[in-house]
Amino acid sequence: MSLIDKERIKLIALQGMISSELKRFSATYDTLLTGETSYIDEICKYVKNGKSKQFRPTLLLVAAKSDQHTSDEVITAAACVEMIHTATLLHDDFIDESDTRRGQPSVNAKYGNAVALIMGDYLYSKALDTLGSNEMFEPLALLSKTTMLMSKAEMLQQETRDDLSISEEKYLEIIDCKTGSLIESACTIGAGFNKELSKHKDAFGKFGLNLGRVFQITDDLFDYLGDPRRLGKPTGLDWSEGRITLPFIFAFNNADNQSKENLLAEYQECKEGALDSMWPEVKSFVDQFGGIDYARSLAAKFGDDAKSAICDIAGGRQRELLDVSVEYVLNRLK
Amino acid sequence: MSLIDKERIKLIALQGMISSELKRFSATYDTLLTGETSYIDEICKYVKNGKSKQFRPTLLLVAAKSDQHTSDEVITAAACVEMIHTATLLHDDFIDESDTRRGQPSVNAKYGNAVALIMGDYLYSKALDTLGSNEMFEPLALLSKTTMLMSKAEMLQQETRDDLSISEEKYLEIIDCKTGSLIESACTIGAGFNKELSKHKDAFGKFGLNLGRVFQITDDLFDYLGDPRRLGKPTGLDWSEGRITLPFIFAFNNADNQSKENLLAEYQECKEGALDSMWPEVKSFVDQFGGIDYARSLAAKFGDDAKSAICDIAGGRQRELLDVSVEYVLNRLK
Repeated sequence: MSLIDKERIKLIALQGMISSELKRFSATYDTLLTGETSYIDEICKYVKNGKSKQFRPTLLLVAAKSDQHTSDEVITAAACVEMIHTATLLHDDFIDESDTRRGQPSVNAKYGNAVALIMGDYLYSKALDTLGSNEMFEPLALLSKTTMLMSKAEMLQQETRDDLSISEEKYLEIIDCKTGSLIESACTIGAGFNKELSKHKDAFGKFGLNLGRVFQITDDLFDYLGDPRRLGKPTGLDWSEGRITLPFIFAFNNADNQSKENLLAEYQECKEGALDSMWPEVKSFVDQFGGIDYARSLAAKFGDDAKSAICDIAGGRQRELLDVSVEYVLNRLK
Repeated sequence: MSLIDKERIKLIALQGMISSELKRFSATYDTLLTGETSYIDEICKYVKNGKSKQFRPTLLLVAAKSDQHTSDEVITAAACVEMIHTATLLHDDFIDESDTRRGQPSVNAKYGNAVALIMGDYLYSKALDTLGSNEMFEPLALLSKTTMLMSKAEMLQQETRDDLSISEEKYLEIIDCKTGSLIESACTIGAGFNKELSKHKDAFGKFGLNLGRVFQITDDLFDYLGDPRRLGKPTGLDWSEGRITLPFIFAFNNADNQSKENLLAEYQECKEGALDSMWPEVKSFVDQFGGIDYARSLAAKFGDDAKSAICDIAGGRQRELLDVSVEYVLNRLK
C-alpha cells in the first residue's frame, strides 16, 4: 500500500467517526448555497463540483462530537467555516492568478476576475450572515476576527514579497494568520459546542493553530519537494511569485557569507522576470544549508505541540482521531 | 447662491448638530485604521486622503442623537459603517475598472487589483471584527447581512448586464441591496442606540431604505443629465458598461413598438464594442419616452416615503435635519 493510500485511509477513519454529521453538513451547505439568484446558484454549483476534503468542517465536527446528538447549530457552524474557506480560495486564486483549483478551471479563469471577487465577498458574508441570523454570536465574532486576520496575512505577503531576508518570526506570523487562524477557529468553535469540552475550547484552539502551522509548512515544503498527491505538479511556484518560505528562510540564515553573496548577486540579475531560471540553484542552496530538514523538523515539532495541547483533555476515540489528523497532515511529506 | 452651495449648506447644517460626535468619529476611524501593518497603514492613509462626505455615519449619529451623552459604542458603530462603505468603493472600483475616486487615483489604479481586493476584504472584516470584539452583536449581525446583500446586488448586476428588458422590480431589488441596505442599517443601528427611539428603529430603517433609493435613483439620473457637482464628467458610463437603469427601463416600457424595434436593431449592431456610439440616441429615446421625468418623480415619491416613515416618531431638530437629508439628496438633481 502506498503512503498516499495510507494517508487517505487515515482521513477516512477520521471522517468515519462523524459520517452522519458530515452528511448533514453537506446537505446544509447545499441548502445555504442555493436559491439566492440564478447566477449565484450557478457559480456555487460549479464551485461545489471541485471536491473539497472538508478538512476544516471535519475538525469542527470531531471537536464537537460527544455522546449527545449533534445539534443543528454545530452543523451550521461547520458549513459556515467551509464557506469562509471556499471564499479564501476564490480570492487567493485571483490574487495568485491561478488557473486551476480542485481539478477544474478556477472561478477567475472560468468566470472572470470580477465574478471571483464578488463571489468571494458573497461567500464570506453569507457565512457571517448565517451565523448572525441564527444568533450564533460567539462563532460570528470569532470568524469575523479570522477573516480579518486572513486578509491581514495577504497584505503581509504583499509587503514581504521578494524580501529574501524575511525573518522566521514574520513567516510564522503570516502562516498563523493565513492558515492557522481558520483551523484554530474551527476547533475552538467545535469544542465550544461540546458540553464536556467547552471549558477547554482554547486548548482545542491551540491544537488547531499548531495543526495549521503543520499544514502550511508541509504545503510550503511541497513547493521544494514536489507534492506526492499531485504528481507532475511543477515546483518553485512560490519562489517565482516572490513568496519566501521557511525552507529558504532557514537556509539563508544558515549559509556562509560567500554562498549568500553569490545567491544574492544572481538574484539581482534574475529579479526582473527571470526568477524561474535560478530555481534549480535556489533548490540546491536550500537543500545544502539544511532548509528542508529544518522545515520538516519544525513541522514535526508543531505536530507535537498540537497533540500536547489536547492530550490531557480529549480522550478515547476522539483523542485518537485528532492525533490521526496531525499524522495525516505530517505524513503528506513522506 | 448656486444650488450646489445651498446643498452644501444643508449637509453642513445636518452635520453641525453632531459636530462633536463627528470629531470623535474621525478620531476613532483613524485609530481603528492604524497600526496593523505598515502596508495596511499606508493604504488606509491613502484612502483617507480622498475626502468622504461621511453621509452614512452622519445619519447613524443623527439617529442616535439624544439629550444624553453619545456613547463610545455609537461612535464605533459609525466608524464601522464608514469602513464597510469604503470597502465597497474599493471593490466596486476594481469591478468597474474605475481609475479615480474622490479626486485621486483609485486604489486599484494606484496599487493594483490584488491590493484593492485584499484591502476591501480587510476593511469589511476589520469593521465586523471591531463590532464582535466589542460584543456589539446586533449591529454585527445587521452589517453581516448588509454585506451579504451588497455582494448579492453585485451578482445581480452581473446577471442583468446588457439586459434591456430588465424589470423595474428587479432594478429596485438591486438598488435596495446595493445602496439602500447600508443606509437602512446605519439608520436602524443609530436609532437602536437611542433610548427614546429604539422601539422605532425599524421605522428609522425604513427611512434609510427609502433615502437609499433616492440616493441611487438620483445617481443613475446623473448618468443621463450630467452631475452638477462634477462639471465636465462624461455621461453615459452606465450605458456603456451595460448597466440599465430606471430612466431607460421606464422609457423602454413606455415606448411605441416601432421606436423600441428601431432601438433594439441599433443595439444589436452596436453591441460588440460600440455601445458608446449610440449613446446620444439612447439619451433622446429616454427623454422622449418620459424616462427622466419618471425617475425624478419616483425619487421624489421615495423621498416622501422616507419622511413619512419617521414623521410621527422623530421630532424637533432631529426630524428637521432628517428631512433636510432627504432634500439634500433630492436637490442634487436641480
